[in-house]
Amino acid sequence: MSTNFPSQVYAERLLHAQEGARAAGLDGLIIGTGAELAYLTGSWISTHERLTALVIPAQGTASIILPAVDRGDLALSAVPDLDITVQGWVDGEDAHELAVQALRASEFKALGIGSSITADHLIPIQNLVGSSCRMELAVQVLKELFVSKDEAEIDQLRGAGAAIDRVHAKVPALLQDGRSEAEVAEQLNALILEEHTAVDFIIVGSGPNGANPHHSFSDRVLRNGDIVVVDIGGTFGTGYHSDCTRTYIVGGNPEAADPEFSKFYEVLYEAQLAAVAHVRPGVTAESVDAVARDHIAAAGYGEYFIHRTGHGIGLSTHEEPFIMAGNTLVLEAGMAFSIEPGIYIEGIHGARIEDIVVVTENGCETLNNQPKELR
Amino acid sequence: MSTNFPSQVYAERLLHAQEGARAAGLDGLIIGTGAELAYLTGSWISTHERLTALVIPAQGTASIILPAVDRGDLALSAVPDLDITVQGWVDGEDAHELAVQALRASEFKALGIGSSITADHLIPIQNLVGSSCRMELAVQVLKELFVSKDEAEIDQLRGAGAAIDRVHAKVPALLQDGRSEAEVAEQLNALILEEHTAVDFIIVGSGPNGANPHHSFSDRVLRNGDIVVVDIGGTFGTGYHSDCTRTYIVGGNPEAADPEFSKFYEVLYEAQLAAVAHVRPGVTAESVDAVARDHIAAAGYGEYFIHRTGHGIGLSTHEEPFIMAGNTLVLEAGMAFSIEPGIYIEGIHGARIEDIVVVTENGCETLNNQPKELR
Repeated sequence: MSTNFPSQVYAERLLHAQEGARAAGLDGLIIGTGAELAYLTGSWISTHERLTALVIPAQGTASIILPAVDRGDLALSAVPDLDITVQGWVDGEDAHELAVQALRASEFKALGIGSSITADHLIPIQNLVGSSCRMELAVQVLKELFVSKDEAEIDQLRGAGAAIDRVHAKVPALLQDGRSEAEVAEQLNALILEEHTAVDFIIVGSGPNGANPHHSFSDRVLRNGDIVVVDIGGTFGTGYHSDCTRTYIVGGNPEAADPEFSKFYEVLYEAQLAAVAHVRPGVTAESVDAVARDHIAAAGYGEYFIHRTGHGIGLSTHEEPFIMAGNTLVLEAGMAFSIEPGIYIEGIHGARIEDIVVVTENGCETLNNQPKELR
Repeated sequence: MSTNFPSQVYAERLLHAQEGARAAGLDGLIIGTGAELAYLTGSWISTHERLTALVIPAQGTASIILPAVDRGDLALSAVPDLDITVQGWVDGEDAHELAVQALRASEFKALGIGSSITADHLIPIQNLVGSSCRMELAVQVLKELFVSKDEAEIDQLRGAGAAIDRVHAKVPALLQDGRSEAEVAEQLNALILEEHTAVDFIIVGSGPNGANPHHSFSDRVLRNGDIVVVDIGGTFGTGYHSDCTRTYIVGGNPEAADPEFSKFYEVLYEAQLAAVAHVRPGVTAESVDAVARDHIAAAGYGEYFIHRTGHGIGLSTHEEPFIMAGNTLVLEAGMAFSIEPGIYIEGIHGARIEDIVVVTENGCETLNNQPKELR
């Protein structure tokens, strides 16, 4: 990904992050590589086990600490245009000490930590700032910043949604009697790449494989009348992700489905629509899960819906808000997430319907718009 | 990777880990996914942002805590044959609390943590066990366990070394005037796959690109007389990695090289041999770095050797022992690592020579054996 938003976008995000850290009583933020760094600087740099960290002190200029040999990779990001001190370190230097120094303080009460920082970095940092310094997850403290999307981000997600919709539009023609899941996946791979910069994942779960929500694809050969769960996603534009599931029947005739399947597919379809209809500012993430779950449970299929209803999506495929029991996060306009209830009958078949939605002032906008009826 | 060592190997490793944790005064270990989990259980399971952890209490049976929908993936590992309690969790359950409960204690003084555990899991775990519980990196506490390889592992690394040597043997024929780095990389990709189960990385750094140790490959077209750094590696057998660098000249005539290059290549060649010759039990990791670095510095090229001399290798490509200044780790028989000094003249060219070595009772065994002379 080398296409970024204008630098001003990142400058504002950095400013908001610093203000948010101050408002939360943090001495600063230490953010690792991945989606959070990309959100704040446009950089997708990866330096493997060597520390790269964006350090935002409560007061003063932010720094990026990274291996000196990787400095060149920052040219692909907005960093050269931003008020960020770039500090390269060489093997043998203590990168963790440099990160702590970049906080520009001598005593620490609380720090906000990026989700992706691994223990081999976090533990040395904790040792340097002292055990009395409280560590909090930056994404928890700065939810407004990381969890809600602005209009430019929503535009990217809209583009991603339309892109994967164009792929789903071609799926019925791919699901031919005699073709294997792997062959379908290979064709999907090419179709996703036509619309995206990268393929994130491909699930083609036919018959009993559809009952495993984490199936990818296999050599199983499709037969007329087989139920097939197709869950696909890719990376779009400046790094935003698509993710959409539809359930199909090989041959395209819904009348050919097992009557028991047709019965629970109708329940699933209603549950997905009810959950989407429930989304608006002010309701909790867990209440969206409950709407889908209660509908499915009331029809007697509760035990077959074995995962959360959804996950946030943006620069990472799975992020807050997680739409599940226990998440009391109150939804706000600009939050984007999947609504993807499923029903899985082990050894026989499964079904899932998934759309990405964005919370609006009055409800939500659905970013995936291919038909949801079995076809 | 579905090929594992016999289950007894993992049973013994688990036992050693538990004994090591007890001896170090830890209340237990919490290990995340990746190389450390693969080392202890044979499992390469990945559950993305959802917690999967191997919890080894100081006393009693170990547990694996993982998303219930992913339980099936453990069938590919030794876990079904081991005395490990498998506990699946469903979305909405507090997986971190399950991990802490699996430690089978109510008070915690110190825990050993796997390197790969991310902040979004480590911070909630720290909150549950209390800030007075000291966190230490498991790999630091259990160095003998993770850092030294046993005979079966060394055999795997030998196989990996021979595999990548067979690829390097074919490199001179690939480096043709008029061919791009990317075209060479595509051919290398196929050759590495013939010998490995996966390609880990491919560097084809010709001319000025050779001066960037983290270059991958580009559309730059090779010309006769160009210097080319080729650094390649793959995943072999049960998951062990290969990693080997040689420096070539397009056309294969070392007499065609710039005299200044020939001069420093000789220095580099001697430095690499001297560092290999220095390796034996009882010397420190940093002393191996110093031997290579001092030789290069004495010839006046010190400022052009801009990275550590090497890194450990095994189930991960980069791990302890890191061969660099500041690492006072004393080498022991069974430790495996790269020795890869380099000299990089920005904008012009670079050179690196890399072998994997294993410490033996009296010195070391070199696992890569292709010629190191410029050719």
